[in-house]
Amino acid sequence: MPQRYYTDPEQFGAETERFFFNRWVCTGRAEQVARPGDYFLAEIGAESLIVTRDTAGILRAFYNLCRHRGTRLWSEAEGSFDGGRIRCPYHAWTYGLDGALLAAGQMGEDFSRADYPLHAVQVDVWEGHVFIHLGVPKQTLAEQLAPLRQSFAAWQMAVLKRHKRIVYEVRANWKLIIANYSECLHCPSLHPALSRLTDYLGAKNLPPSPAFIGGSMGFKGSAETMSMDGVRRRAYLPGLSAAERKLVNYYVVYPNLLLSLHPDYMLTHRLMPRAVDHTQIVCEWHFHPEEMVKPDFESADAIDFWDQTNREDWRICELAQQGVRSRAYTPGPYSKREELLQAFDRVVAEDSARTP
Amino acid sequence: MPQRYYTDPEQFGAETERFFFNRWVCTGRAEQVARPGDYFLAEIGAESLIVTRDTAGILRAFYNLCRHRGTRLWSEAEGSFDGGRIRCPYHAWTYGLDGALLAAGQMGEDFSRADYPLHAVQVDVWEGHVFIHLGVPKQTLAEQLAPLRQSFAAWQMAVLKRHKRIVYEVRANWKLIIANYSECLHCPSLHPALSRLTDYLGAKNLPPSPAFIGGSMGFKGSAETMSMDGVRRRAYLPGLSAAERKLVNYYVVYPNLLLSLHPDYMLTHRLMPRAVDHTQIVCEWHFHPEEMVKPDFESADAIDFWDQTNREDWRICELAQQGVRSRAYTPGPYSKREELLQAFDRVVAEDSARTP
Amino acid sequence: MPQRYYTDPEQFGAETERFFFNRWVCTGRAEQVARPGDYFLAEIGAESLIVTRDTAGILRAFYNLCRHRGTRLWSEAEGSFDGGRIRCPYHAWTYGLDGALLAAGQMGEDFSRADYPLHAVQVDVWEGHVFIHLGVPKQTLAEQLAPLRQSFAAWQMAVLKRHKRIVYEVRANWKLIIANYSECLHCPSLHPALSRLTDYLGAKNLPPSPAFIGGSMGFKGSAETMSMDGVRRRAYLPGLSAAERKLVNYYVVYPNLLLSLHPDYMLTHRLMPRAVDHTQIVCEWHFHPEEMVKPDFESADAIDFWDQTNREDWRICELAQQGVRSRAYTPGPYSKREELLQAFDRVVAEDSARTP
Repeated sequence: MPQRYYTDPEQFGAETERFFFNRWVCTGRAEQVARPGDYFLAEIGAESLIVTRDTAGILRAFYNLCRHRGTRLWSEAEGSFDGGRIRCPYHAWTYGLDGALLAAGQMGEDFSRADYPLHAVQVDVWEGHVFIHLGVPKQTLAEQLAPLRQSFAAWQMAVLKRHKRIVYEVRANWKLIIANYSECLHCPSLHPALSRLTDYLGAKNLPPSPAFIGGSMGFKGSAETMSMDGVRRRAYLPGLSAAERKLVNYYVVYPNLLLSLHPDYMLTHRLMPRAVDHTQIVCEWHFHPEEMVKPDFESADAIDFWDQTNREDWRICELAQQGVRSRAYTPGPYSKREELLQAFDRVVAEDSARTP
Repeated sequence: MPQRYYTDPEQFGAETERFFFNRWVCTGRAEQVARPGDYFLAEIGAESLIVTRDTAGILRAFYNLCRHRGTRLWSEAEGSFDGGRIRCPYHAWTYGLDGALLAAGQMGEDFSRADYPLHAVQVDVWEGHVFIHLGVPKQTLAEQLAPLRQSFAAWQMAVLKRHKRIVYEVRANWKLIIANYSECLHCPSLHPALSRLTDYLGAKNLPPSPAFIGGSMGFKGSAETMSMDGVRRRAYLPGLSAAERKLVNYYVVYPNLLLSLHPDYMLTHRLMPRAVDHTQIVCEWHFHPEEMVKPDFESADAIDFWDQTNREDWRICELAQQGVRSRAYTPGPYSKREELLQAFDRVVAEDSARTP
Repeated sequence: MPQRYYTDPEQFGAETERFFFNRWVCTGRAEQVARPGDYFLAEIGAESLIVTRDTAGILRAFYNLCRHRGTRLWSEAEGSFDGGRIRCPYHAWTYGLDGALLAAGQMGEDFSRADYPLHAVQVDVWEGHVFIHLGVPKQTLAEQLAPLRQSFAAWQMAVLKRHKRIVYEVRANWKLIIANYSECLHCPSLHPALSRLTDYLGAKNLPPSPAFIGGSMGFKGSAETMSMDGVRRRAYLPGLSAAERKLVNYYVVYPNLLLSLHPDYMLTHRLMPRAVDHTQIVCEWHFHPEEMVKPDFESADAIDFWDQTNREDWRICELAQQGVRSRAYTPGPYSKREELLQAFDRVVAEDSARTP
């Protein structure tokens, strides 16, 4: 892609508008809002959202600002709203979990609380992943991801529980991170540990769709999962076929969820673009709850492996960012192992060409 | 007010031009320049000014830059000019306290020192407060503040002495800070300590003027001043009537002086806008000199009380700043206790609409 | 010069284009790339360059980015390329020291390595100083600096070796630093140590050329070099005449080399503009190799002297930067000792007026 896709703040603004404010964006896990009153704050671009479950058990999402003077309502990243009320810290305007304005002091005669509910936004769940849409969806989340339903059913993602989160701040454009995730041609030179476990030439990619790209890779030798030594220290996820036990699925669900399904755990990366050259990445490791309660439950092998691989990847993405800003930069040729990048580039180019 | 008033750097530039470069702006206290040669540096926007008293006892203010190559002349925040000379550290061009160029080395035949005095600006004093005007005043400072003369005469502000200064850097637009200062509807939810001493429903506001807004509030129960416990540890300021001893006056003198007159001390805040979302606030506590020399003089009760209240206010102003930048923000309705804010909004809107 | 020359980012962009991307720019010393495989990274504006010597002994310079995806190739500031290969850390594209692409994995049938060499740029050496030209030179480096050849021949600069480097980050426009270097009218007020050794009124300047400005200054009293006490602790550089031993040459080789030739050592400053108000300055002390191997070789006298003088100069340049951004700033008159500044101003103004 031409330089401006990675370096121009205006292009970044346009992409934020099209890919993040006008698509289903992954923001967390349903287990974070399991009970009424539970909430977590999500960020999309510079926007802060409250995701919560109301007293009727319905999942809700609101812009995180008071209708009175626009004050940011809530600052703690996650928790539970006391008494099922959201109270603005400034003048104590108070909202229900469904967003209704319940109390506002000293207002005039002609003021009607019904006119000032929280600004609601669309929220939905796919296999335990919470997505938010700040615009008007053309498709439901289920429609958009229907082609993936069958492929991942056996993993029962909704059942898995988050065990570990690491947040990375990366000085690279979000698209360079997606590009990096979408090919393993770089694995031999960049990831010696990973390359001992898996053969990049064995990657099998699905035909790219407008909603996702991805594929699977098998193991080398006696490796049974991605970990420092390839040893699998947890039971296979229940329901996996013999074939599914022998590979890892790597998918980009546009625009910001990287989904890595292992035989014994799930790894997710959520990309949060901050600036044209800055992306926050929330990486989480999810395990089966039956494994997590075992006294000898282990996770360090999987965490350390991917933390190291992550750091290798972020470093090279930052070097890519530094290079593409040069006046000498021109897009280079793709190899035979980079077809997913081309598909992604096309989606970005098409969306950018459309009028917003 | 619409979002751009709080988030748009261009709007901020226009406001700096109209409110800070084209009005009387409070920059300090006359006691800082009591004797000839005394000076302090003032900042208005990105401009640095020298305020000093010349050998004839006349108060003077100059842009803080040399006429030779434009070098910043002086960097120490306050003090006294040795020998009544201001000497540029670069090439030693030397000025008198009246701004006249006294010496400049190696200049050509046709050079005349009379052509290169320091750039002078208007400076004046109101009740001990030093104001600077970088443009051409339409009114003298005395004319502008004439309506306040009678109201505050009893406090004898010029006599009071600064005892303590705390400088705060607040990540909020300067107008949000003025708005916050101009209503106490938020006091019950935000300021528990303050709300024990004073009743926000008892606020009595003067009709708003183009030069200031404000009013007074009485005490609750046995409270006699604003302090951690409401106990007054200093004599009443001399000259206050029985009625004046029972209230605190809170005034905004546009554009940047917040004046809080207590029965036993004066609190001032000077706002120094740094960016559309960043304001420096210089907060000072001033007491009567007769109190300050007493062996048992106490001030911590007043300082701690307002420092805590300040921090509560700055925090909520920062949350307001975070909220109003959201794409979902729309100005909300004012309550019956926010009429001063509406008056301030009108002044800002009118000034912004005028051609500069 | 008008304010915008020192404060306007657009003017800075234009100057970067004209003075740094379209002239010979000094980036280091030939001794850093003495043997094949030796390299150092150079920066010009936001561009990173690799300067290296190939197996045939030819000096080479390349943009520091891979032709595949634009990744920054190399990050270590200097060293030697193992095995004479430059290997991209991302997908292992591998280049020779002459820039030829030697290996690229998994490329298609119609891919030709010959189409993707590193982007080469012009590099040349003058008296041991390495210069790079990112555009199309109108003159060779030798032609441009021909008028200086005779003047400095006796110093044998190519023979001298770097002994010490100090890097300064200065919050001032690069032109203010050149202006500061080009007159000593400020020496009596700013540099007491320097002024004990040399008389600014004794400066003898060459007529300004389009490629450089400069002149020489003699010593005061018994001083024999620029050092804390004026004592010379090293032999005179071989080949200097009696007259040359009695002075220091101070030259600006446009746009970024400040060359200070002492009777017993060479001082260089390389200016690296980072932003309109930020310049990185690489200061190096170079001595004769025969002196450096002596057991009693001393350098602290020269290093400490110039480090102190540098800091005095950077400080005043930063004050100048602060002053010129004032709305009250207007260019002031030049003294009789600032004729080189006027020459420099003319070069900048002429180059800025030309269409790029």
